[in-house]
Amino acid sequence: MELNLLFHYQIGSNVIFGETKIQLNMAQEKNKKIIFNKRPVGVPDEDCFKFLETDIPEISEGQVLVEIHYLSVDPYMRGRMNDRKSYIAPFQVGEVFTGGAVGKIKASKDKKLKEGDFVVGMMSWENYAVVPAKELTKISPELAPISTSLGVLGMPGLTAYFGLLEIGKPKDGETVVVSGAAGAVGTIVGQIAKMKGCRVVGIAGSDEKINYLKNNLGFDEGINYKTTKNLRADLKAACPKGVDVYFENVGGEISDTVITLLNNHARIPLCGQIADYNVTEMPMGPRWQSYLLTRMALLQGFIVGQFSDKYGEGLKQLATWLKEGKLKYKENILEGIESTPDAFLGLFKGENIGKQLVKLK
Amino acid sequence: MELNLLFHYQIGSNVIFGETKIQLNMAQEKNKKIIFNKRPVGVPDEDCFKFLETDIPEISEGQVLVEIHYLSVDPYMRGRMNDRKSYIAPFQVGEVFTGGAVGKIKASKDKKLKEGDFVVGMMSWENYAVVPAKELTKISPELAPISTSLGVLGMPGLTAYFGLLEIGKPKDGETVVVSGAAGAVGTIVGQIAKMKGCRVVGIAGSDEKINYLKNNLGFDEGINYKTTKNLRADLKAACPKGVDVYFENVGGEISDTVITLLNNHARIPLCGQIADYNVTEMPMGPRWQSYLLTRMALLQGFIVGQFSDKYGEGLKQLATWLKEGKLKYKENILEGIESTPDAFLGLFKGENIGKQLVKLK
Repeated sequence: MELNLLFHYQIGSNVIFGETKIQLNMAQEKNKKIIFNKRPVGVPDEDCFKFLETDIPEISEGQVLVEIHYLSVDPYMRGRMNDRKSYIAPFQVGEVFTGGAVGKIKASKDKKLKEGDFVVGMMSWENYAVVPAKELTKISPELAPISTSLGVLGMPGLTAYFGLLEIGKPKDGETVVVSGAAGAVGTIVGQIAKMKGCRVVGIAGSDEKINYLKNNLGFDEGINYKTTKNLRADLKAACPKGVDVYFENVGGEISDTVITLLNNHARIPLCGQIADYNVTEMPMGPRWQSYLLTRMALLQGFIVGQFSDKYGEGLKQLATWLKEGKLKYKENILEGIESTPDAFLGLFKGENIGKQLVKLK
Repeated sequence: MELNLLFHYQIGSNVIFGETKIQLNMAQEKNKKIIFNKRPVGVPDEDCFKFLETDIPEISEGQVLVEIHYLSVDPYMRGRMNDRKSYIAPFQVGEVFTGGAVGKIKASKDKKLKEGDFVVGMMSWENYAVVPAKELTKISPELAPISTSLGVLGMPGLTAYFGLLEIGKPKDGETVVVSGAAGAVGTIVGQIAKMKGCRVVGIAGSDEKINYLKNNLGFDEGINYKTTKNLRADLKAACPKGVDVYFENVGGEISDTVITLLNNHARIPLCGQIADYNVTEMPMGPRWQSYLLTRMALLQGFIVGQFSDKYGEGLKQLATWLKEGKLKYKENILEGIESTPDAFLGLFKGENIGKQLVKLK
C-alpha cells in the first residue's frame, strides 16, 4: 500500500512544506486470489487452481471490502467447473473462484453495513473481497462462532433442514438412511431425524466416521461402505423395518442398494450425487424406477435456494437446537488460502468429517 | 345345466303327477376358465395360458354369480406373473387369472346386489365368476356403456386423473409430455392436460397412433419413437419451452431422453415402465439423477389404489367431461374368452389404441 505523506517543519521563522510517498509493507495487506486455471476432465487436481498476488482492491459506491476469515469448499462447486448450464453459472477459466465465505468488513461505501461488521455470503476466493453490500448478510459473532454461518447455521445446515423436513417428512418411528452421513449436510440430517423420533442409519467411508456418527451424534447404526462385505445385507440388518426416508447425497451403487429396501410411500430427498461429480461420461446403473413405482416412492431433487423464503425460520430453529445442545457440529479446518485447493480436492477423497473450511484469518 | 321338471297330466278323471330331469344344453351356459399355466421368463407367450372347461360354479352366502361381459387386460398384470413381492400378490401357477371385469349378475346370495344388476370389480378370468358381493361395485348401464367402467370411467381413467392432477399438477401454459400416449391411460392424460391449458406432446409407436392423438384427441404434437431419426431433437422441437410434466408410462430410452429436457421444478408421475416389464435381468441405463437434482424435479411412483378414498370425486369429474364431450375414449375389443391371451400379449407389442378389452358376451 502506498501512502502520500504531507509534512512541514520549521527552521527559525521558516516553515517548509513538503510531500513524500511512503510504502507500507504490512503482512495483512497482501491479497492473494485463486484463479480458475483450467477446466478439469474427470477428477480435478492442483493444476485447476492458480494463485495471483494483487493489491487490496478498491471499493465503489454500494460495495464493501471484506477481510475473509473462512472460505467454504463444497461438493456442488465441482459442477461449476464444467462448462454446462445448471442452476448456477459455470466458473469461467481465468476468473477468480467464488463461493461461500465469512469475514469482517474493513471498508464500506454502503449505508447499512459498517466497518467491523461480520458478514456472510458469496465472495471471491481471495483474502480481501469486494462485494456488493446487498448480497451480504450480517451476522452476530456473539451468537455463535462465525464459521458456523458456513456450516450448521449456513447453507449445509439449511440444506439438511429443508431437504429432510420439507421433502423427507420423517415421522416418529420411521427409519431414515443418510448417505454421505459424516459430511456437513449428513451429520445435521441424522441429528434432526433423531429429534423427530426416527431410527437413523448413516453410510460413510471410514470407521472413524462411523464411530463419530454413533458415539457423538447418536446415530443408531452406521455402515462403512468401503469395508462392508455385503452392503445390502448390512443395510437390511440395520433397517429391520425397511427404509422410509433415504437422504441421498452420493448416488452410485450405494443408492442402488438402498432403493431396493424402500418401504411403501418412501421419500428420497435428492441432495447430492458426489459419486458422479467427476465422471467424464454419463455413468450407467440399474434402472430402478420399478422399485419407486411399486413402492409409491417419491424422489425429489432440490437446491437449498428454493427454500430461501423460509431461511429465517430454518436458521432460527437450527440456532435454537444448537443452543439447547441438541445439535452438534464438527468442522475440519485447513489454514491459509494456499490450502484451499487441498481442502476442495479432499471432499472427493472423503477426507472431512463435518464441514470443510479454510481459515484465512 | 340340469333341470328338475315337475309335471302332471290328466287322463279322464285320473291326474298323474311326475318328475323328470332334463339336460339343457345352451351355449351360454358353458364356462371356460383361463389358468396360469407357467411363469414366463422374459416375454410371455401362449404357453402361459391354459383353458379349462367347467360347470357353471355355485355360489354361497354373500356371493354373486357374474356373467362376465368384458375382461380387462392391463400391463401391470405382467408383474403379477413374476413370483415377486409387490403391491399386489403374484399369480399362482395352476390357478385361474384374475383381473378387472364387468358383467351382469345371474344369481345372488347377497342382500344388496340383485340378479340383473351390472357390476365391476376384480374377477376370475372365466365366463361365469363367483365373487364376494362386497368386492363389487354396481354400475348403471344407462349412464355410459358398461365397458367404460374398465377404461375411461375405471382404473385407467382414474390412474390418468390422479397421476396427472395429484402428482403432475399441470399449470396453464406448461408443457406436458406423455409416453405410451395412445394407451388406455395416456389418451386420458393428454386430454386432461389439454383441458388444463397445457401444450401436450405424445410419444407413441405408430403413425396411426400419432394421427389419432393429434387429429382426434387434440394433442399438439406427437412423436413416433419407432421411426424418429433423433428422438431428442424431435422432442426439443415439439417442446420449445422445455418439459414441465412428464407422465411416465414406459421407462427405458424414451424416459432417458425426456429427462434431459426437464424444466426447473418439473414433475414426473411414474405410472408405468412397460419397456422393462419383460426383462430377465435388471436393465441398465444412464444415471440421470443429476438432472433431477439440478432441475429440482420430482419423480413419484404411484398406484391408482393409493387414491381410493377419492375415487368418487374422480369418477364424477371424468363422467362429467365424458358427457360434455370434452373427453373421448377408444376401445380395442377382441371377441371371445379364447382371445384373451392375444389381447394381453398385444399390450407388449403396442397393438392397441386406447383401452384393450375382451368381449365375452
